[in-house]
Amino acid sequence: MQLGVCYYPEQWPQAMWADDARRMHAMGIRIVRIAEFAWSKLEPKPGQYDWAWLDEAIETLAGAGLQIVLGTPTAAPPRWLLDQHPDMLALDAHGHPKGFGSRRHYCFSNEAFHAASRSIVEAMARRYGQHPAVIAWQTDNEYGCHDTVLSYSAAAVQGFRRWLAERYGTIAALNEAWGNVFWSMEYSSFEQIGAPVALPTFANPIHSLDYRRFASDEVIRFNRMQAEILRVHSPGRDVLHNFMGFFAEFEHHEMGRDLDVASWDNYPLGFTDMAHFIPDEDRLRWMRTGHPDVSAFNHDLYRGVCKGRWWVMEQQAGPVNWANANPAPLPGMVRTWTWEAFAHGAEVVSYFRWRQVPYAQEQMHSGLHTPDNQIDIGGTEATQVARELARLQPGPAGRARVALVFDYSAKWMHEIQPHGATIDYYSEVFSWYSALRRLGLDIDILPASTTSFAGYALIAVPALSTISETLVERLRASGAQLVFGPRSGAKTARFSVPEGLPPGALKTLLPMRVTRVESLRPGISIPVLAAGRELGSAGTWRDFVEPLGATEVLARFGDGHPAILRHGNARYFAGSFAAALLLDQLEGCAREAGVMVRRVDDGLRLRRRGKLQFAINHGPHSARVPAPAGARFVLGSEVLPAASVAAWEVGPQDEPA
Amino acid sequence: MQLGVCYYPEQWPQAMWADDARRMHAMGIRIVRIAEFAWSKLEPKPGQYDWAWLDEAIETLAGAGLQIVLGTPTAAPPRWLLDQHPDMLALDAHGHPKGFGSRRHYCFSNEAFHAASRSIVEAMARRYGQHPAVIAWQTDNEYGCHDTVLSYSAAAVQGFRRWLAERYGTIAALNEAWGNVFWSMEYSSFEQIGAPVALPTFANPIHSLDYRRFASDEVIRFNRMQAEILRVHSPGRDVLHNFMGFFAEFEHHEMGRDLDVASWDNYPLGFTDMAHFIPDEDRLRWMRTGHPDVSAFNHDLYRGVCKGRWWVMEQQAGPVNWANANPAPLPGMVRTWTWEAFAHGAEVVSYFRWRQVPYAQEQMHSGLHTPDNQIDIGGTEATQVARELARLQPGPAGRARVALVFDYSAKWMHEIQPHGATIDYYSEVFSWYSALRRLGLDIDILPASTTSFAGYALIAVPALSTISETLVERLRASGAQLVFGPRSGAKTARFSVPEGLPPGALKTLLPMRVTRVESLRPGISIPVLAAGRELGSAGTWRDFVEPLGATEVLARFGDGHPAILRHGNARYFAGSFAAALLLDQLEGCAREAGVMVRRVDDGLRLRRRGKLQFAINHGPHSARVPAPAGARFVLGSEVLPAASVAAWEVGPQDEPA
Amino acid sequence: MQLGVCYYPEQWPQAMWADDARRMHAMGIRIVRIAEFAWSKLEPKPGQYDWAWLDEAIETLAGAGLQIVLGTPTAAPPRWLLDQHPDMLALDAHGHPKGFGSRRHYCFSNEAFHAASRSIVEAMARRYGQHPAVIAWQTDNEYGCHDTVLSYSAAAVQGFRRWLAERYGTIAALNEAWGNVFWSMEYSSFEQIGAPVALPTFANPIHSLDYRRFASDEVIRFNRMQAEILRVHSPGRDVLHNFMGFFAEFEHHEMGRDLDVASWDNYPLGFTDMAHFIPDEDRLRWMRTGHPDVSAFNHDLYRGVCKGRWWVMEQQAGPVNWANANPAPLPGMVRTWTWEAFAHGAEVVSYFRWRQVPYAQEQMHSGLHTPDNQIDIGGTEATQVARELARLQPGPAGRARVALVFDYSAKWMHEIQPHGATIDYYSEVFSWYSALRRLGLDIDILPASTTSFAGYALIAVPALSTISETLVERLRASGAQLVFGPRSGAKTARFSVPEGLPPGALKTLLPMRVTRVESLRPGISIPVLAAGRELGSAGTWRDFVEPLGATEVLARFGDGHPAILRHGNARYFAGSFAAALLLDQLEGCAREAGVMVRRVDDGLRLRRRGKLQFAINHGPHSARVPAPAGARFVLGSEVLPAASVAAWEVGPQDEPA
Repeated sequence: MQLGVCYYPEQWPQAMWADDARRMHAMGIRIVRIAEFAWSKLEPKPGQYDWAWLDEAIETLAGAGLQIVLGTPTAAPPRWLLDQHPDMLALDAHGHPKGFGSRRHYCFSNEAFHAASRSIVEAMARRYGQHPAVIAWQTDNEYGCHDTVLSYSAAAVQGFRRWLAERYGTIAALNEAWGNVFWSMEYSSFEQIGAPVALPTFANPIHSLDYRRFASDEVIRFNRMQAEILRVHSPGRDVLHNFMGFFAEFEHHEMGRDLDVASWDNYPLGFTDMAHFIPDEDRLRWMRTGHPDVSAFNHDLYRGVCKGRWWVMEQQAGPVNWANANPAPLPGMVRTWTWEAFAHGAEVVSYFRWRQVPYAQEQMHSGLHTPDNQIDIGGTEATQVARELARLQPGPAGRARVALVFDYSAKWMHEIQPHGATIDYYSEVFSWYSALRRLGLDIDILPASTTSFAGYALIAVPALSTISETLVERLRASGAQLVFGPRSGAKTARFSVPEGLPPGALKTLLPMRVTRVESLRPGISIPVLAAGRELGSAGTWRDFVEPLGATEVLARFGDGHPAILRHGNARYFAGSFAAALLLDQLEGCAREAGVMVRRVDDGLRLRRRGKLQFAINHGPHSARVPAPAGARFVLGSEVLPAASVAAWEVGPQDEPA
Repeated sequence: MQLGVCYYPEQWPQAMWADDARRMHAMGIRIVRIAEFAWSKLEPKPGQYDWAWLDEAIETLAGAGLQIVLGTPTAAPPRWLLDQHPDMLALDAHGHPKGFGSRRHYCFSNEAFHAASRSIVEAMARRYGQHPAVIAWQTDNEYGCHDTVLSYSAAAVQGFRRWLAERYGTIAALNEAWGNVFWSMEYSSFEQIGAPVALPTFANPIHSLDYRRFASDEVIRFNRMQAEILRVHSPGRDVLHNFMGFFAEFEHHEMGRDLDVASWDNYPLGFTDMAHFIPDEDRLRWMRTGHPDVSAFNHDLYRGVCKGRWWVMEQQAGPVNWANANPAPLPGMVRTWTWEAFAHGAEVVSYFRWRQVPYAQEQMHSGLHTPDNQIDIGGTEATQVARELARLQPGPAGRARVALVFDYSAKWMHEIQPHGATIDYYSEVFSWYSALRRLGLDIDILPASTTSFAGYALIAVPALSTISETLVERLRASGAQLVFGPRSGAKTARFSVPEGLPPGALKTLLPMRVTRVESLRPGISIPVLAAGRELGSAGTWRDFVEPLGATEVLARFGDGHPAILRHGNARYFAGSFAAALLLDQLEGCAREAGVMVRRVDDGLRLRRRGKLQFAINHGPHSARVPAPAGARFVLGSEVLPAASVAAWEVGPQDEPA
Repeated sequence: MQLGVCYYPEQWPQAMWADDARRMHAMGIRIVRIAEFAWSKLEPKPGQYDWAWLDEAIETLAGAGLQIVLGTPTAAPPRWLLDQHPDMLALDAHGHPKGFGSRRHYCFSNEAFHAASRSIVEAMARRYGQHPAVIAWQTDNEYGCHDTVLSYSAAAVQGFRRWLAERYGTIAALNEAWGNVFWSMEYSSFEQIGAPVALPTFANPIHSLDYRRFASDEVIRFNRMQAEILRVHSPGRDVLHNFMGFFAEFEHHEMGRDLDVASWDNYPLGFTDMAHFIPDEDRLRWMRTGHPDVSAFNHDLYRGVCKGRWWVMEQQAGPVNWANANPAPLPGMVRTWTWEAFAHGAEVVSYFRWRQVPYAQEQMHSGLHTPDNQIDIGGTEATQVARELARLQPGPAGRARVALVFDYSAKWMHEIQPHGATIDYYSEVFSWYSALRRLGLDIDILPASTTSFAGYALIAVPALSTISETLVERLRASGAQLVFGPRSGAKTARFSVPEGLPPGALKTLLPMRVTRVESLRPGISIPVLAAGRELGSAGTWRDFVEPLGATEVLARFGDGHPAILRHGNARYFAGSFAAALLLDQLEGCAREAGVMVRRVDDGLRLRRRGKLQFAINHGPHSARVPAPAGARFVLGSEVLPAASVAAWEVGPQDEPA
């Protein structure tokens, strides 16, 4: 467990570098990320490199005892490249190019941009790839930021056609697979296929889904190109990318195969303010601490992307500048977020940024230091963490007993065909995650492609649009308690209703038939009852289910339709359950699975790493942690103030009964 | 009264057709509509027709005893036509073309598209026009769906110029008529005139209105071309079009002259969720039954489009897929909606669709059967209707005693110059219609061009922007009680303030002068009083009226301005009255007109057809119907459960006192 | 103090002109503005002028004893100019041109349009410049109306590059000044710089600010061209422009240097309905009177634009047609608004318009007469004002004792980098202005470029983003009590964080350091306390301040951070204070400054002119005015009905204690 920081030597006078490096080390920081937006400084003119300043910066940092993560600068292509290749710009759905003057203006499908990227990455890798202080490479920066995965350039559309030709072989096969007989949408050539945008009404959903799959593949292809160059010229160094929270426009797990470490950028207050699935009252309530599950969700997700290795590459250190409202964190939260990341298994937490830069787009984005080079609150708290780290190294995070399946395709399918304007994949998944966390559980978030679920006691599968037979087999083989949410198995991989109706392949686990579905406006609530007692309510979404075979109905909606079904160790929730109902029902599942449940208060969360049990209080009130009597605290104590963390050594009482 | 169904043989294996046809007939269905999106299957390559499959489908259906409505497939032009004529696409106001990949991407003004349409329609008409099972043709599908009436292509703008030249003769006459001296908007040639869009601020309202009139004429011209071909090659068959509910971008009554039957597509839940003029609380309240007036309004409107002949071509049979929320109908509603249509005079009610298709855009749109070919709730209810129909054929619907004037131009004029952001023609008209229906009245919705209003006892004219002298004469000649709403006669046909101020020609009936108007924000409510008593309130809109001559003031707004005026048998409501006030005032008018009033509960509605009096309960609670003592019920009984229908034979007590 | 009217002879039959002119004069009107949209009538074909009608109109008006303001017609270029120069159109951020068919479609940077404007202005000036009845010229009409300051045409972008080259000299200097090292945004040539729009994310804020400065300069350049021609050919006449309320896209004070008189167009109900910074409940409350500060703010602002000389060029005379809701004014308000303008120092109040025009875009915009040429309420009230004016001429408005600094650049900077979605410069400034007016104070609104603040007792500076050393010196030299709002001095003129942190140069007056800032969502309220007592609250925005040197903390936020700081005679409010807190605190400042405070009721406002003290009641209830005992009333009396005005002669009791 180490601390890092993001640093931009090119943005500051060289005279400041040595002092900066010295103070980083003195503060306890050991890793520094540099160069990821410096293309115009590294290659001021086409093919003319200026390494001198970066040589100097690396020597200065290394000389102070710091290890370096080098960023490839492809997220910010220089202006001269646009003169050479005006078609390198991404286009929006109406064909408007995205202009120069910020960042991420490139189209992933533009080959000239690939070539230029290849050159700068290779040049950097050749020069610094074997430098002893360079321990890792970051490719590009936050792929997908500012909605930049999808482009509608000529190159993208041509690429899409090639991608389709490879996938479907013949145009007849595509017409058949897409169901193009509908509305006379049949093609006679791949060249006739365009992007599924700016149409009079809905595109064929598989048309849209394939475009998104293609766009995801383009991002992965671009990243793989960089990773391959880096591995050749910088052997033994980790290759990583800094993903963002809740950007899901490409398949992160797929990209993870080309990386050594998944890192991500953790801005809890920005996410809380902006994530569309967080209710407004929660935005206000958690505005200074972040929603208690917003960082953890991503920690648990990214831990699953690269076989357990993950960092926080950018950790919010004060107010950000990009949300609709940008409040200051509660004092203590920068430390608390750092410990939360470690508790979830992070190897490194790296702060963004060393010092607030007084000019350009991020001049209102705080850092560890103010622009006048005084230490800020975040800097002070980072220093405290560094001191604490010196005595606390609890070992790696183990596998959790509870898994939750998250699927990028399912998100896209919900967006392409929501069936109701307020229906949203993240809303469903995040409410399940929150409920499980309120039960005090550790969770692994896993892709549907996971090859083995062995060892899990409870597997939650909310709203997984497509469920393959392979997945059903693997889930069955796990022996775990399984709980599926509404809309699970609702679609085939070709975006159609499965033969024999949903839940498709899941029927072998859960014999039933979803004969119809309905979406409901906000404000509509349907009671869920069992044995004459109201258990809670559902809203937003409902499946109408006909149980088959031995499937039992455990609860019904007010109008008699099944709400909760069970067959063997598999359950199905046939609606979008309100928080309280979801909490109770998932608690029942967890208990049945033999997992130890510890309900925690609103802002409190638990997480174990190695031999330490952490408790994180997102406040704003103090809370009593559920430590066993006599627990040995290594951080904090039983009564946990707002915005703070406690940790105690795990004893036998911390294991499930 | 017959039942029909929409069927897409091209979307299903041929092996299923015979069984489908047999089961349709067994269920009591006698009419089947096919082929209206099958252009790419009928003409897979330019000029190469493939009739084999349709021959077979027609024989199969006809062989099972079904009569066929053939749709011309022009709503879904095939991809190859776009290769030939890239300029066939409609353009939006910024010149962006509407892409291929759904439907209705064509521009009504494109002559190459007209030619291609002529060819496919003629080819179909030649082949099947005299087939004994073919009883009718449907032109295209839902003209105007997805906002496709207006296009800004070069062809459209050129067509607009020709249209203006024909209408105005000289450019000087146009400048004079439009008032182009204002803001130096004078033209020296028709070629200088563009579409009234993407300007820095408002266009001249007559510029906008003429563009909409032109666009409406283009739709009518396209349809007339098809109708003429069909009449030549398929003599004796009905030509119809399936209009939509609340799509009003072209003059339906004008198109009606080229048709034999007006049919329309009735999706009560979709309309209730989406119609902008339905208050949010009503959306929730009627989400499973549809607003009790939403279907009836269109039934009464379309009955007036083709001299009384009308069908429901597509009847919602379960949840739809296109509203913001898509709940399931209350059990019973599919049957109830069917009977409601028959009560209002429909010849045919045809369900959409035989079977939910598991792929493409409408895979979430339910039908009479689920995608796995099991009968669904709607199918069961249709079967029940068929059984009931076997014993109930009450004869044609007669003329109602109450008329309401609806005008497409008035809608456009309200949109072009609302004067207030929340002002809307449908809001006003629908609230008047609802109030009259709450009084238990049967209503004919008529165009302003109606040549004789003879026989009506009460004629309601809400918000009719333009009132011609001819209309005034015809209304006067009717001898009916007349009631005009706010903004009636506010404009000339050239979209200007009438000489001598509004209500223009209406002054001869109602001597008065509207000296100013005001629009009010939601939340503003102005009391209406008479003899010191508050009668109710108005909001949204107010006319400031000066009575002239013998015009009496029956009620005043709180600040003393006249609210209700009367002269002879004509009344004027000088504001947008809240529902309760409107109900009371229209009740007074109806009683004065000698029309029998029977106030009905919230969800209950009455409608007479022939010798039967129907009562429809949109629930969700049971209701007692206002049948006379001893009434002979042929459907239901005096106490009507939610989502159901009753009918009794009309006795003398059912006539006005 | 004189009355005027806006008149459009070209829009009416010539036969009406003489009677119109006679009645204007009889009503007491002495000034008439004409011709400002008549380009197509004056120059029907390129270079062919038709003066006959305007000669006749001028003679007719002059013959009736009226003085004439001639408008240059450049706000409405004729259609033929577009045939000659299709590139004269302004383009939006996506390159879409703004079409012909309304007004203001031109791009300020188009040289062909400049040339055509020069020709028509010169031709008019040559013909009428020395006519004895012509007393003034109005350039163009409402620069900036319909968001027309910013254009993204090729000419505009080229102009921007030249402007930058002049400002920065070398591209290296620009890169340095802008901080283009950030995100590799460095340029190698001015030709590479585009408009700061349609980028993937934020542009560099200085890029955006410079584009807005450039666009403002273009407007000023265009106006100066006209003013110079007019001065040559029409010596001795006033040159003025009619500014609008709350249009702030160019530097009005800068343009004021080229004008003799600042006039503006006062539509109190339209502003109240549309101004984004007026809370919704206030919109409803003041819908018939206008927010009590909405006109006064602009009166006080425009009085400062041309050394004290100002007119109301267009005064709302009834309902307007362009707001989201357009209610009728309360009877009495047209007179009251007129007196309010005079009380604030107007030389002329000119009504818009003589008569409502029955056709084209403004057919729903009322005037002094209805379209059928009958006098309307506004006409009657204007007649009354004319009678009152005959006996009341109190002399010029003097300098106020309180100043408020308003800055166009600060508004742009708030918009470019709000830091929070609801943060807004006008919201802050208008709430300060309202609070000062609630204290009964007269206010001068001044630019930051004011050379001397001598004579002011209190100077309020809310949210002035950039504070130069020169301004600090001038403020200090005034000896006034100074009060600064949040965000003052937050930025340098190059849009960066000042060295040593905000408030930059203000530190010499107020030693302190703003270490961080936060924006807060609506609904978040932070208490402000002193000596254990809650003084009120703040929301929306907060500065975190560290006092330096002898700076005292007078109040703190609930979490202990300083809320009000004082050093010498300067105070700093470190948050966006809620209305009640702001009122109390500014009252304290005013008392300390020795300014006489008279708190007035909600709708009442005071304003002194010469020897008269005016009280204006925006109603809707009657109010008692704070006149001293025995005051001599020349208008109204001590109890002031709703929607009316009183004035009394100033006695010694009306001076500060």
